Amino acid sequence: MTRPDSRDVDALRPISFMPNVAPYATGSVLVSFGNTRVICACTVEEDVPRWMRYQKVKGGWLTAEYSMLPYSTLDRKQRDITRGKIDGRSSEIQRLIGRSIRAVVDLKALGQRTLWIDCDVLQADGGTRTASITGGCVAVAIAINKLISEGKLKKSPLKQLVAGISAGVYKETPILDLNYPEDRDASVDFNVVMTEDLNFVEIQGSGEEATFSSEQMAAMLELAKKGTIEIVELQKTAIAAADQPNTDSLADLAAAFGQ
Amino acid sequence: MTRPDSRDVDALRPISFMPNVAPYATGSVLVSFGNTRVICACTVEEDVPRWMRYQKVKGGWLTAEYSMLPYSTLDRKQRDITRGKIDGRSSEIQRLIGRSIRAVVDLKALGQRTLWIDCDVLQADGGTRTASITGGCVAVAIAINKLISEGKLKKSPLKQLVAGISAGVYKETPILDLNYPEDRDASVDFNVVMTEDLNFVEIQGSGEEATFSSEQMAAMLELAKKGTIEIVELQKTAIAAADQPNTDSLADLAAAFGQ
Amino acid sequence: MTRPDSRDVDALRPISFMPNVAPYATGSVLVSFGNTRVICACTVEEDVPRWMRYQKVKGGWLTAEYSMLPYSTLDRKQRDITRGKIDGRSSEIQRLIGRSIRAVVDLKALGQRTLWIDCDVLQADGGTRTASITGGCVAVAIAINKLISEGKLKKSPLKQLVAGISAGVYKETPILDLNYPEDRDASVDFNVVMTEDLNFVEIQGSGEEATFSSEQMAAMLELAKKGTIEIVELQKTAIAAADQPNTDSLADLAAAFGQ
Amino acid sequence: MTRPDSRDVDALRPISFMPNVAPYATGSVLVSFGNTRVICACTVEEDVPRWMRYQKVKGGWLTAEYSMLPYSTLDRKQRDITRGKIDGRSSEIQRLIGRSIRAVVDLKALGQRTLWIDCDVLQADGGTRTASITGGCVAVAIAINKLISEGKLKKSPLKQLVAGISAGVYKETPILDLNYPEDRDASVDFNVVMTEDLNFVEIQGSGEEATFSSEQMAAMLELAKKGTIEIVELQKTAIAAADQPNTDSLADLAAAFGQ
Amino acid sequence: MTRPDSRDVDALRPISFMPNVAPYATGSVLVSFGNTRVICACTVEEDVPRWMRYQKVKGGWLTAEYSMLPYSTLDRKQRDITRGKIDGRSSEIQRLIGRSIRAVVDLKALGQRTLWIDCDVLQADGGTRTASITGGCVAVAIAINKLISEGKLKKSPLKQLVAGISAGVYKETPILDLNYPEDRDASVDFNVVMTEDLNFVEIQGSGEEATFSSEQMAAMLELAKKGTIEIVELQKTAIAAADQPNTDSLADLAAAFGQ
Amino acid sequence: MTRPDSRDVDALRPISFMPNVAPYATGSVLVSFGNTRVICACTVEEDVPRWMRYQKVKGGWLTAEYSMLPYSTLDRKQRDITRGKIDGRSSEIQRLIGRSIRAVVDLKALGQRTLWIDCDVLQADGGTRTASITGGCVAVAIAINKLISEGKLKKSPLKQLVAGISAGVYKETPILDLNYPEDRDASVDFNVVMTEDLNFVEIQGSGEEATFSSEQMAAMLELAKKGTIEIVELQKTAIAAADQPNTDSLADLAAAFGQ
Repeated sequence: MTRPDSRDVDALRPISFMPNVAPYATGSVLVSFGNTRVICACTVEEDVPRWMRYQKVKGGWLTAEYSMLPYSTLDRKQRDITRGKIDGRSSEIQRLIGRSIRAVVDLKALGQRTLWIDCDVLQADGGTRTASITGGCVAVAIAINKLISEGKLKKSPLKQLVAGISAGVYKETPILDLNYPEDRDASVDFNVVMTEDLNFVEIQGSGEEATFSSEQMAAMLELAKKGTIEIVELQKTAIAAADQPNTDSLADLAAAFGQ
Repeated sequence: MTRPDSRDVDALRPISFMPNVAPYATGSVLVSFGNTRVICACTVEEDVPRWMRYQKVKGGWLTAEYSMLPYSTLDRKQRDITRGKIDGRSSEIQRLIGRSIRAVVDLKALGQRTLWIDCDVLQADGGTRTASITGGCVAVAIAINKLISEGKLKKSPLKQLVAGISAGVYKETPILDLNYPEDRDASVDFNVVMTEDLNFVEIQGSGEEATFSSEQMAAMLELAKKGTIEIVELQKTAIAAADQPNTDSLADLAAAFGQ
Repeated sequence: MTRPDSRDVDALRPISFMPNVAPYATGSVLVSFGNTRVICACTVEEDVPRWMRYQKVKGGWLTAEYSMLPYSTLDRKQRDITRGKIDGRSSEIQRLIGRSIRAVVDLKALGQRTLWIDCDVLQADGGTRTASITGGCVAVAIAINKLISEGKLKKSPLKQLVAGISAGVYKETPILDLNYPEDRDASVDFNVVMTEDLNFVEIQGSGEEATFSSEQMAAMLELAKKGTIEIVELQKTAIAAADQPNTDSLADLAAAFGQ
Repeated sequence: MTRPDSRDVDALRPISFMPNVAPYATGSVLVSFGNTRVICACTVEEDVPRWMRYQKVKGGWLTAEYSMLPYSTLDRKQRDITRGKIDGRSSEIQRLIGRSIRAVVDLKALGQRTLWIDCDVLQADGGTRTASITGGCVAVAIAINKLISEGKLKKSPLKQLVAGISAGVYKETPILDLNYPEDRDASVDFNVVMTEDLNFVEIQGSGEEATFSSEQMAAMLELAKKGTIEIVELQKTAIAAADQPNTDSLADLAAAFGQ
Repeated sequence: MTRPDSRDVDALRPISFMPNVAPYATGSVLVSFGNTRVICACTVEEDVPRWMRYQKVKGGWLTAEYSMLPYSTLDRKQRDITRGKIDGRSSEIQRLIGRSIRAVVDLKALGQRTLWIDCDVLQADGGTRTASITGGCVAVAIAINKLISEGKLKKSPLKQLVAGISAGVYKETPILDLNYPEDRDASVDFNVVMTEDLNFVEIQGSGEEATFSSEQMAAMLELAKKGTIEIVELQKTAIAAADQPNTDSLADLAAAFGQ
Repeated sequence: MTRPDSRDVDALRPISFMPNVAPYATGSVLVSFGNTRVICACTVEEDVPRWMRYQKVKGGWLTAEYSMLPYSTLDRKQRDITRGKIDGRSSEIQRLIGRSIRAVVDLKALGQRTLWIDCDVLQADGGTRTASITGGCVAVAIAINKLISEGKLKKSPLKQLVAGISAGVYKETPILDLNYPEDRDASVDFNVVMTEDLNFVEIQGSGEEATFSSEQMAAMLELAKKGTIEIVELQKTAIAAADQPNTDSLADLAAAFGQ
């Protein structure tokens, strides 16, 4: 079996993080997994949702919104507001992003704040939800570092990093990090969210119009684990780099925009 | 560890199926998993969605809608139409139900028809999504038998049965079929959809504000497998019984309504 | 003139009430008028609408919501939320149900509470709005008895029972309690809401694409009066029975579900 | 008992019709019942609704829309579009207007056309729905006369006139044509729609938080009949006058605008 | 070049103001520019928007809503609520009306009040937005005079009058006050809002599918200035007349309704 | 008077164009006017709107959508879909963008195609609407060049370039290209759209809570003309550069992202 882009079955696509693309956000990053690119921004609101105030829950909150920009797909995708309702798939993805990142944030330690994670897909070539989790976590880390540097937080409520990656069964072979053509033709599709210490946060596996066995699942989870280890390293580098802005990140920039 | 209702860790709640509760549907069943009760109906429309006609896809389609009746929870739940939008959770669940049942239906063999699966929760005590898949599959089987008996189909496009069941980690112990108090306090929540031949269709595992290990996952999947074997037997009995209506199903009725 | 189901012109269809079908509601009943079946639930909220608090109106409130489940009709009925707006007919019916039951409830004596009446049609064979009023009143009575038994109310704010029934002119003959084929072909359609002491609460008579005379109206109102007397007796029996749950109500259950 | 405006119990308010207020409509009239004023317009569309084409129903259609202008009440009423949904009361009223006028129009003889009846309340002092039916019928008559004069119709599909009037029980006395203060304090409120030949088209009687007896109903219907006879005469005069526009209708104009 | 209605290039259409057409509004006027007629009403609400209270902004607010009645155009225009969203053009116009009138109102001097300006187009023959500004300002003046006469305001917060007028390039000639056929065929369309002292408040000029030169712009602005001078005189007369209601304004009435 | 960023009164902010930021669009550019950055994409759909097919209008269409990303402002801006409706301001701006670019496109020569212009604001520091027009025109030019290079068009339907720029009166001085603090405090705000040959396409000038004189207007238009001349040169360079992708545009990239 040869993958359409000749990658090894256990190889990630080139991954890069371009920090601070949205300077008015507290933290932001343009994350790329090959041709999949997502703008991830973390904005801090010094308030909590009404239900928390009402139920007198202490601490803060974190919520995510996910949207595909109309020009992110080869056929233009209509905006949600034009169709009049949020698309079921988007709603499901933003719930997943929120849950995944909340699993690694100590909400009590965050204080009475809301972290808004916005993920806007600039280019969609498979794996947008896992790229959003991966990039969203970097945006949160940058934002929290900023709050610390501004003296608003003493220590980080981010307990560890979290990353998302896909795996699937394509032409009967388990592979890592599916691009769009692979995803479209895969018989099983797994999205795995893991922490830096390699525990699971979320597993979503689906065999639409197909089923899968325990063995296949085990193989996919193994691939996901390998991918997570690599991604976490890249996340750490990106977060560190974001603290030293305006250095010669030209190569990164060029890589991020495929030039 | 003792479960709130004293069940063994690997015990299902009492499960029952009351067929034909909605006689104008092609197939229907009131499924109960303990106090969780869902009306599942399958309605046949002799047409396919516009996108199928437009893209000239052959065969039929199957789609699901899920809703919680306002009086299904201890605090009245506002209707979607009153809030003006479908709730993200409902949208996610109905996508899951549709995908799960499509995995066992040969859509090409269905002919140019749409099967609508409606799942309306009458009483919610945990596990409504897995009960909906389990009951929805029974409703589909009844509906397909009716199409066959009416001569509209020669053989069944239902390749095998599918069932949904939850497992979770509660007080650090893996348990099967969580009721609402267990679900609320669980650190990990798995929804597993399996076929009659014990392959997986969907796995959704989430540790909101927590993570989980490979070992915990393995234990939960083992519980789910055990549960599925038992549920499939009950589904088969219910489908067979639905073909002989009006026999003395009084005991079933009473069980279904907890009387 | 022979009626499609051979009933006498002044005969009601078989009417039954199955209490407690939705155990998480304060009071609930599945009411059947022949093949028309409606789940009626009364949920108590320990609060009043904002306008009442704002205008400092004393006492409580009662409001109703009515909806047809998608599988209640022979052709599947799209959900309101899918169409994006509540259907004019449903909105009109829920206003009628609310007004009808408020006429017999002493809102001041109810205290600062809201009674929510939900009527979800499980099967629609004509007369769903009058069945909803009739069943809604039973659900309210059950709920109020529960509030009294819990010591939350000292005496019942339900002044008397209220029932709804239809009458119409079909093939030039006034008839009682129209089923769907009769309703579709009737030249005049009356919905009459009366109290236990045989006063009127609401009269809605309409001759779409036709007109009607004073004599016809008088005959229809006479039929409605006869029907109301019979229905009120059945309501009383059902309310009394609901206080002794779990007795052998199997026969009722079977009748309710047509088995 | 003295009425707030000293009218006899069986007296109508001053009623006037100012035709052609909306010259781009096919027919239009500003109808006044005392301080209640409604712009009623009938617009002809040379097409029928999709469902009629689809079901191959012959003939035409008639539909109504009703809205209160924001400045029609003493406290500004928010527009439906601002609230995001049509108000239940408006929806109910526009269904009533449509049904009432369809009862006197031979839709087959209308040809493949839709008559749109728009009723926009300029000032609301009780009885806006009955004024809308009364004025809507005049607008239809004017529009149909125009279609005839243009040769688009050979004979009128308007079989006879239809009028709406309210009656009620106020301070225990049956009275005709309630203004807003009477309506607010009435224990029973009837809206009666009758034809020129004094048959009924619609009766809607409601005793919110009260009930009413057969005797009270008989008295109200008698008042409604008396009112209808008088209104129909005024409708006829207005329709005839609309055919001779630009004559010295200054006095009518002044009366219509209360000057 | 001859204009379709033979007017001079710098001539306004006949303009009239019929005050008090909506007596429940604080101030109202039916403004006509030829066949363009708009009901303009100003309603006073003794409260300010939430954002003003929240941000502790002193003084009052003024906001406008604009809508075309369905029968205002030769082909019936669907209501916003039926289409489910406000039309982009209406939204743009109501923002313009609000801004234009706020420019001449001293909001601080208004006190904690909101002035709602409602503009409902009864007949649309070009220039509805400028007629709405012109009529809206008259309605505000009448409303403010009423507040003064009731002792609620000591002096007028209306600093001066404001008027709107259109100009355009039609068949290569700059003309004033375009009616609908001129507007449709114009290559450039200007809407100019000026104050009584001939300063500008808003200029909106657009050459859809065309461009325009500085010279053309200068000529159109000159025409607009001439028009404004004439309109302001008519506004003053109308405001003065509104203070003496019920005088023999029959001629005005007739003019307003084209009779 | 000194400007907050020390620019000369007639100086533009640094302007840059980074082409091909959204590779799945037919043409795209990230335009920056200082800190204002907008992603402008042009997507080609090989179809025309329904109204064009229905009215049998020949040629193509061009339409624009404008949106502010939630993290484009210092306080997070709620998404339209979350608020449930498109914001009046956005709707007005997207109409302006569409009209402005249509003025320079020969729609007949475009063929039966729709050009969708999407403008998503990444960072908002004043002048987002004029930056959108300026960048949108570049995206259209790039897309059209691509259609030509693919042989889908023989010659360009883009007649000339169009650019948008703002001018205003700030501290009583006319200035060019206002950033957000200037815009917020300006007494007059002009948005001017001009073509390459220095004719006007749109002029929108507004003095909210203020008025302006002819002299001020003349000064602002003069500034706008000067700005347009400079911008058009930059647009031409960017369009030419986009044809030679992957050359060392690293400096541009860095400039675009402020690094």
